[in-house]
Amino acid sequence: MGGVELDPYTDRYAARTRGMSASAIRALFAVASRPEVVSLAGGMPFIDALPLDAVGELVATMVRERGTVALQYGSGQGLPALREQICEVMALEGIEASPDDVVVTVGSQQALDLVTRIFCDPGDVVLAEAPSYVGALGTFSSYQADVVHVPMDDAGLIPAALESACEEMARANRTVKFLYTVPNFHNPAGVSLSVPRRDEVLAITQRYGIMVLEDNPYGLLGFDSDPVVALRGRTDEGVLYLGSFSKTFAPGLRVGWVLAPHAVREKLVLAAEASVLCPPQFTQTIVSDYLRTQPWQQQIKVYQEVYRERRDTILDALAQHLPEGTRWTRPAGGFYTWVTLPHGLDATAMLPRAVQGRVAYVPGSAFYADGSGTSMMRLSYCYPPPERIREGVRRLASVIDEELETRSTFADEPGTDLAPADVGVPEAVTAPGPDTA
Amino acid sequence: MGGVELDPYTDRYAARTRGMSASAIRALFAVASRPEVVSLAGGMPFIDALPLDAVGELVATMVRERGTVALQYGSGQGLPALREQICEVMALEGIEASPDDVVVTVGSQQALDLVTRIFCDPGDVVLAEAPSYVGALGTFSSYQADVVHVPMDDAGLIPAALESACEEMARANRTVKFLYTVPNFHNPAGVSLSVPRRDEVLAITQRYGIMVLEDNPYGLLGFDSDPVVALRGRTDEGVLYLGSFSKTFAPGLRVGWVLAPHAVREKLVLAAEASVLCPPQFTQTIVSDYLRTQPWQQQIKVYQEVYRERRDTILDALAQHLPEGTRWTRPAGGFYTWVTLPHGLDATAMLPRAVQGRVAYVPGSAFYADGSGTSMMRLSYCYPPPERIREGVRRLASVIDEELETRSTFADEPGTDLAPADVGVPEAVTAPGPDTA
Repeated sequence: MGGVELDPYTDRYAARTRGMSASAIRALFAVASRPEVVSLAGGMPFIDALPLDAVGELVATMVRERGTVALQYGSGQGLPALREQICEVMALEGIEASPDDVVVTVGSQQALDLVTRIFCDPGDVVLAEAPSYVGALGTFSSYQADVVHVPMDDAGLIPAALESACEEMARANRTVKFLYTVPNFHNPAGVSLSVPRRDEVLAITQRYGIMVLEDNPYGLLGFDSDPVVALRGRTDEGVLYLGSFSKTFAPGLRVGWVLAPHAVREKLVLAAEASVLCPPQFTQTIVSDYLRTQPWQQQIKVYQEVYRERRDTILDALAQHLPEGTRWTRPAGGFYTWVTLPHGLDATAMLPRAVQGRVAYVPGSAFYADGSGTSMMRLSYCYPPPERIREGVRRLASVIDEELETRSTFADEPGTDLAPADVGVPEAVTAPGPDTA
Repeated sequence: MGGVELDPYTDRYAARTRGMSASAIRALFAVASRPEVVSLAGGMPFIDALPLDAVGELVATMVRERGTVALQYGSGQGLPALREQICEVMALEGIEASPDDVVVTVGSQQALDLVTRIFCDPGDVVLAEAPSYVGALGTFSSYQADVVHVPMDDAGLIPAALESACEEMARANRTVKFLYTVPNFHNPAGVSLSVPRRDEVLAITQRYGIMVLEDNPYGLLGFDSDPVVALRGRTDEGVLYLGSFSKTFAPGLRVGWVLAPHAVREKLVLAAEASVLCPPQFTQTIVSDYLRTQPWQQQIKVYQEVYRERRDTILDALAQHLPEGTRWTRPAGGFYTWVTLPHGLDATAMLPRAVQGRVAYVPGSAFYADGSGTSMMRLSYCYPPPERIREGVRRLASVIDEELETRSTFADEPGTDLAPADVGVPEAVTAPGPDTA
């Protein structure tokens, strides 16, 4: 009595909704879209680099010639022709696979959802890098799985740390369902798993009987060398591989996929049917036609050049403007660099002041299930043009400088919330390595 | 030792996978697609009735002019412009709503999934018509919800039976999360909930504090009269409404929606983000442009005419060819008629012989969570042209005649599986009513 009932349905929600909360990225969408703000927050591909006339023409032809099929319901597993082409795409990273083991999904986010759905009971453990992709953390949490983070350094996931985590979980009698990893151009960390470590990681997970969920949206977007052989390219045992056309073509089509062992694939199709009946036949047909008729590998090179220039720009600007004591990773591909602020600064607390200073980023804590990562942030260089990136970093540097000044003013005052002890952050992530500036 | 391990991952699946099994419709896809088979099984809209040139032109223009937005990531809730247009579409069925309370989904199947995800814990009860849409049953089962069927007759869900079910669940201390209902041109039953019953159903569910999940993909596809006011048009309290462009435009775009009370809508968006990040911006933009620039209400009339002719054809053919003792519903809209075979025949057992006789249907048991409905079948008249429908019914009649002959031959033999007792089928569904032939 007397209280205001804000949500009359509170008593009726399923227990799993307690794991669903708004992500920091979502809350930032509104802010980042204001034209005066330089957004280094979103991971939006630079779609302007696509040949829109050719794409428009392709789609018009397709609708005229095969519209009655493309506009119709399709199979829950996805278009057979596209699944064959997906195998050709994966071959670029050393993967041999049958189209029959591929399930087309509504972006690779749905693949994450379906895999978690068929494997994770509440309380199951998912091992994931620290930090880890915010969208995956949201999915794991929505199925009430517990994420246990495993530290990375500049060569990616640290095998010894993975082994310790596996050992600890075994001792605690916890059920680990899989290791979730983004081995190439990590979101948000910007690092890649080195080649020697790939075999080490697989040896450890196989020894502990833990599956690997390899999420690889950025693998073909390396700047400096040919693609590295995927984990799934090294073994077909116990690895589920997630791919996406969101970064190599366009995210608005929502076409991703999962490659899974045959028995698992059957379960995934059933889960997909319960979830969306079938992925959109229309956008699948567009991707299939695009791969068949357009120079898609050349387009990937165009994207690489765009993002390489922006990576160079942001690294140069960071070195030029950011104060001493700030560190960042040097991505060899992909969209992100991961910045560690001078000791004592809190990226979440600083965000409103940054937005006031007309620059946006994603605070590091969004990428940890355990609330750590507070002194870190993800900067994306994929979307703004180089001059905007440079301006954004200048603005960010000013904000950090002001924070440092405030901090030094109040330095004698113990317990100020401007200088929290960074206890939650694994040492390995914050330690400078050969690749950090 | 010595056994063949068919699925090495068996021990690792989540408990919810035990509720996931291949639907009869899925197994039929391969069969039904053979050109020599007349498929009265699938619920595919007749896409040939669309003006494909206009659609192709519309899409090409959109890509050229706004491709960089349409091919980009969008919001988890869906395109704001489209959500406004969806409110205009719903207004045709007497619904007043704010675009802010609409969530665009990957077909209304995803809306079913998201609603079940946020409301249903394992063991919760969902009330559903007997029979009920097979895709919804699959979703409820994949979240380990228990479906309790409520009988229908030719005027739809029977209020007294609903009240009994609510009472029984309350006595048994079961948690009922919602009533799932398809009030217009029911899939598979082909009947509609009468106007007086609409208010009765709402009064009962409100009295028992049970939400209503109103699934309305066919509401605008009536043959004989203007659309009836939706349940959600009668009250905005406790009703979640699902809509779809799959039947009024095209299913290959996978654009559906859910209209929900505001607090529920927030949870749905979080669940949607965990599930697919955002629905395809590309197909949403196509639907939005289609509604804005094309005579979409006129197109619905075209669809109505197509389906009305096919409905007339199938009813005529059924009356002409099917043996005495067979009954069927007379749909006033939508895609389906529901056939009850002469006592003793089993539609599931008969299916292989029907396919051999080059006609396919969906056996009734697919539409029951409890395995009943064995003497029934769903016939779809939406996709094949009239002459094929007529031929399909002729073939079906031959198969039924042969079954009856076999049955009479073995009639003296007790316990034969050709004549199972139909104990599981609610009396009300099988009883002939004013609308059945």
